[in-house]
Amino acid sequence: MTAAAELLANLSTSIQGGAIKVVDLTQTLTPTTPVIALPPEVGANSPPFSMIPVSNFDEKGPGWAWNEIRMGEHTGTHFDAPNHWHTGRTYPDGGPATIPADQLIAPACVIDCSDESAENPDFLMEVEHIKAWEEKHGKIPAKSWVLMRTDWSKRTDPDAFLNGGHTPGPSIEAAKFLAEERDVMGFGVETVGTDAGMAGMFDPPFPAHHFMHGNNRYGLASLTNLDKLPPKGAVIITPPLKIAGGSGSPLRVLALVAG
Amino acid sequence: MTAAAELLANLSTSIQGGAIKVVDLTQTLTPTTPVIALPPEVGANSPPFSMIPVSNFDEKGPGWAWNEIRMGEHTGTHFDAPNHWHTGRTYPDGGPATIPADQLIAPACVIDCSDESAENPDFLMEVEHIKAWEEKHGKIPAKSWVLMRTDWSKRTDPDAFLNGGHTPGPSIEAAKFLAEERDVMGFGVETVGTDAGMAGMFDPPFPAHHFMHGNNRYGLASLTNLDKLPPKGAVIITPPLKIAGGSGSPLRVLALVAG
Repeated sequence: MTAAAELLANLSTSIQGGAIKVVDLTQTLTPTTPVIALPPEVGANSPPFSMIPVSNFDEKGPGWAWNEIRMGEHTGTHFDAPNHWHTGRTYPDGGPATIPADQLIAPACVIDCSDESAENPDFLMEVEHIKAWEEKHGKIPAKSWVLMRTDWSKRTDPDAFLNGGHTPGPSIEAAKFLAEERDVMGFGVETVGTDAGMAGMFDPPFPAHHFMHGNNRYGLASLTNLDKLPPKGAVIITPPLKIAGGSGSPLRVLALVAG
Repeated sequence: MTAAAELLANLSTSIQGGAIKVVDLTQTLTPTTPVIALPPEVGANSPPFSMIPVSNFDEKGPGWAWNEIRMGEHTGTHFDAPNHWHTGRTYPDGGPATIPADQLIAPACVIDCSDESAENPDFLMEVEHIKAWEEKHGKIPAKSWVLMRTDWSKRTDPDAFLNGGHTPGPSIEAAKFLAEERDVMGFGVETVGTDAGMAGMFDPPFPAHHFMHGNNRYGLASLTNLDKLPPKGAVIITPPLKIAGGSGSPLRVLALVAG
């Protein structure tokens, strides 16, 4: 057995035996799953999740239940592909169907901004917060996700979650630093979008989108359970639906954590 | 560093370095992605995939593109949850949002029925085919997927793929054997559903659904690239969307294979 084959065998055994835990970083999709509410002057909004029964153990299908589902590509826990943004729209491998499969499993660095976000809902993570994390845990490894923990996912009331647009995120400089000075896979958050709630008024607007996607990097929004991840060492699995010509996708995000 | 932590570090490194390959087992979602066509007397049909732009770098969102997506839960490459079927409808952990997360990553056993399916589109995999695989590779390990390779996914024309309802699948006895005599995680296929095209006329009808879901096991349909997996040793990742009250989900299926 090769080392790689042995590693895969150990992976299955460790998951089944509990030595490696699978932590679900995903919000449940329901009609009340919060979606971003852009002011009308900024742009159109994306629809919430809805479900229409095709059959439900009835005359339309006596032995089975199934549904049609409708939602925005960026509804609930979702993946932002580079093609979502004007700065990343021309990357041929920048759509959910064209991103190389080996980019969909990667390590995660978790920067804890929960205290700051509890104090100030408009908290901006700065370069200094990233560098303080690196002081403790070493430089962010190449092709790692950086996840900003804010405990925002504990706000289970949709209004408290959206909070009138007052939600934390990265500063312009922090977004630029991660995209250009660190070889990250992407940037993920617990809030409804990867940018701070007020980031539409920044210059450039929505800097996490602007710099990340402009550098062919990805985004993850509406994550949960980031408080169950270590600062370093988790591996996350981020497989978007394979939507031809898409801009992103609702998805299930799983983390592998040493138990 | 614990053994589990080291394993996770090696997993990331092996994926980045190519010692472990990530094989995408997913069909691309487009408006022509084939969906099952049940005869009207059997039941209502599930809608195909469609996409409606919310904005496309235009007045509805100058800096970004995004879409609404609509589809059946069982459209394209999809996950069948036990709650999909009358035999599995009462399992509290049998829906896409309630299945334990550690069940979503598991080893795969691939049984090659491609020659038989090329010769006979109504080919049924029997218990003897499963036992012949076990003669060579050992008993199907607990909590493994059994994947029936037919090379059906090479039929890229939707009509040839659906083939007027003449498509291979498991026999009644084989479905019952896998569900009751082997502790499988689930059963996956390259065809549009986990049952043979003619299985609506079997007794019980749709035996793969009947026995698998009746035993709280899962299904995967419309898989691709099964010819790129070894008979044994791959680990597959099968994370459905977390749909509250759902019956299954379109999903991205990834396989980890020793390179």
